[in-house]
Amino acid sequence: MNECDVADIVGKRIRSIPDFPKKGILFKDITTAIKDSDTFNLIIDWFVEKLKDKNVDYVVGLESRGFIFAPTVAYKLNAGFIPIRKPGKLPHDVERESYELEYGSDVIEIHKDAIEKGKRVAIIDDLLATGGTAAAAYSLIKKLGGNVVSVDFLLELTELKGRDKLPKDVEILALVLY
Amino acid sequence: MNECDVADIVGKRIRSIPDFPKKGILFKDITTAIKDSDTFNLIIDWFVEKLKDKNVDYVVGLESRGFIFAPTVAYKLNAGFIPIRKPGKLPHDVERESYELEYGSDVIEIHKDAIEKGKRVAIIDDLLATGGTAAAAYSLIKKLGGNVVSVDFLLELTELKGRDKLPKDVEILALVLY
Repeated sequence: MNECDVADIVGKRIRSIPDFPKKGILFKDITTAIKDSDTFNLIIDWFVEKLKDKNVDYVVGLESRGFIFAPTVAYKLNAGFIPIRKPGKLPHDVERESYELEYGSDVIEIHKDAIEKGKRVAIIDDLLATGGTAAAAYSLIKKLGGNVVSVDFLLELTELKGRDKLPKDVEILALVLY
Repeated sequence: MNECDVADIVGKRIRSIPDFPKKGILFKDITTAIKDSDTFNLIIDWFVEKLKDKNVDYVVGLESRGFIFAPTVAYKLNAGFIPIRKPGKLPHDVERESYELEYGSDVIEIHKDAIEKGKRVAIIDDLLATGGTAAAAYSLIKKLGGNVVSVDFLLELTELKGRDKLPKDVEILALVLY
């Protein structure tokens, strides 16, 4: 099966919910895709195929929906899993990074001792929208001395141009484009 | 390797953090275990071993740390993954269940159409403490008509007697006991 067939099958399993979380937003609901084991397997296998020759040491997942994919990909790659979390959730010393939202800003954190210098890291999240979270995650990993080899998403809202927030030289992949 | 050896190896990789999230609590930090790929694999394989002969249709994970284990176990079992989330996160119609905390109460939600009647469901979370969340998750799945075949945790704080909150006839398993 080629990538376009996979994207088509997965895309058809994703449900659009109007006006969530607020009026005017058409929310992409992935729960209908991941409850179907064949579709969930296709998604995981797509991430794994993209990363399997990159000698990934750690897969970083972003709370909360990144956690649905990143650990399974880590398991399949024989890599470790590292969470990036919302503020106040990680119990040990953290690096923090803030990023802008439409109104205000938000913060994400990673344990300072999570990644050793030079380790090869893939970042996985469900959705590339404005790119703020992904760019903040990239910064956190660089601060720790990690080497980001790929930033991968299940979905991308291409009109929001989130890719422009990430460095030009990093690989950015998404399976289903809107 | 027997189960006690696995529990010993995993237990040694878990870090205890004093006074988190508040004074007097010795927090069990699993991030040091899951960043080590061998340890993460041992954990996943333990869950899978326990569930592989139970014809599980869906693995339910509880936000957020349950998401670190449940989807990978679902993948290995060829089951679907279903999230139970904090309020306001799931975009479609939900069932809600509240449960008591030390001070106040909290709520979790599941999509009403997540589980078809009679489907065989395993619940996975990182930690069995007072059992409030697990009991609420069990109720939600029963409300939808699901058949809970096992409730499984990486860690259990045995002194808190969380098992007593769950029905007597349901299988409850934990790998590392404190």
